[in-house]
Amino acid sequence: MSAEAPAEPYNAFLVGCPARQLFDRISDKWVGLTLSALARDSRRYSELSRTITGVSQKMLTQTLRNLERDGLVSRTVTPTVPVRVDYELTELGRSLLPAVQLLKGWAEGNIERVQAARETYDAQP
Amino acid sequence: MSAEAPAEPYNAFLVGCPARQLFDRISDKWVGLTLSALARDSRRYSELSRTITGVSQKMLTQTLRNLERDGLVSRTVTPTVPVRVDYELTELGRSLLPAVQLLKGWAEGNIERVQAARETYDAQP
Repeated sequence: MSAEAPAEPYNAFLVGCPARQLFDRISDKWVGLTLSALARDSRRYSELSRTITGVSQKMLTQTLRNLERDGLVSRTVTPTVPVRVDYELTELGRSLLPAVQLLKGWAEGNIERVQAARETYDAQP
Repeated sequence: MSAEAPAEPYNAFLVGCPARQLFDRISDKWVGLTLSALARDSRRYSELSRTITGVSQKMLTQTLRNLERDGLVSRTVTPTVPVRVDYELTELGRSLLPAVQLLKGWAEGNIERVQAARETYDAQP
């Protein structure tokens, strides 16, 4: 073993590694936006749908189901009429939040630089 | 030009905002893996292809072209025979690295917790 061998047994660079599949799962705008929308507080489905504009019902439902299955979001059903469903970050989901918020903040803070780079690139002969 | 930057005018939650499109662009496993593979040093195309196992030539080429156009990666052609092409992070690309590495590290460090959550979820009646 080389001295540079990582302690981490999982490596997202490797196509067969489970961490690659998870990295793919969390590298997804709907995952990022959903986790970000839950950053402060629990939210109802309808609130999430209003916050994340442009998300289809099918996509939001599927994203929430995957996040619940992966242990990142918990779902609480209150048996009122009509039934009330709240979503909340779990501790595990909360631990992913810094990465997601950094990524989202980067996009919001650097879009003008990226647009300038695109203009330069497209103006090349 | 005002010296005082306004509060962040871009919001990735909004479907029409350019930051949403950029957030989508950078929330992509191939973008994340390519930037991560360039973290330490410049790399040739063939080195990137070997590091990011499972990436197709078409996908890697397209990812690198988008990253170059977005100003995140620079491409240097050395006119040897055969031509040598190196890719390197720009300063802008380097500024995205912390978010990407946090996301990748999270996947590698938490895959076992996620797998346990999936087993619990799937065992529900």
